Amino acid sequence: MSQQIPLDPAVAARLKRNADGLVPAIAQQYDTGEVLMLGWMDDEALRRTLTSGRATYWSRSRGEYWVKGDTSGHVQWVRSVALDCDADTVLVKVDQVGAACHTGRRTCFDADVLLPADQ
Amino acid sequence: MSQQIPLDPAVAARLKRNADGLVPAIAQQYDTGEVLMLGWMDDEALRRTLTSGRATYWSRSRGEYWVKGDTSGHVQWVRSVALDCDADTVLVKVDQVGAACHTGRRTCFDADVLLPADQ
Repeated sequence: MSQQIPLDPAVAARLKRNADGLVPAIAQQYDTGEVLMLGWMDDEALRRTLTSGRATYWSRSRGEYWVKGDTSGHVQWVRSVALDCDADTVLVKVDQVGAACHTGRRTCFDADVLLPADQ
Repeated sequence: MSQQIPLDPAVAARLKRNADGLVPAIAQQYDTGEVLMLGWMDDEALRRTLTSGRATYWSRSRGEYWVKGDTSGHVQWVRSVALDCDADTVLVKVDQVGAACHTGRRTCFDADVLLPADQ
């Protein structure tokens, strides 16, 4: 039997999850500062992200853990992880291999610019 | 009577809100790339952000619109706004006056670093 190692209890105690037990997780390229995407994590996804070196999310659409890059090869190597002042958001600085976005773009925010209008 | 000008219908049509009618909004310093904070927007907060030049959120704790800096002076001047590929997250690049965090720190992610452990 494999042992389940829980998230650090001190972190779990201050983490403020939404009604689904999730917190938003912002992935940012550690050196350029590009905001790559926003995913969602539960305690186990955060634990895996902290311990495995690979950014790991909870896929709300698929209802399963999602180790970024396992299918696409577009791995996110974790460089740092921080909670915000309310402990309800995670910032993961990563080294992104290839495209962060499933559309093939570098980031998920490249295509749908609302302002400035001429961009 | 003041006229209510709604959010651009084309944007409203593709915006994917959560059960509370909100989307997470990441505020990023436009030149340094610092991720400053994560707030929440409904259609009206997004409309005000797009049209007023001031980042405007929906305060879930206070149940009211929150024009960042109105109380603190720590205004966020909007430089650009984008939706992500799923239209369920907003990225607002701003010029942040002073501290983004209510604790007085520059960003909300400066104080609670989980990894690396020695930081």
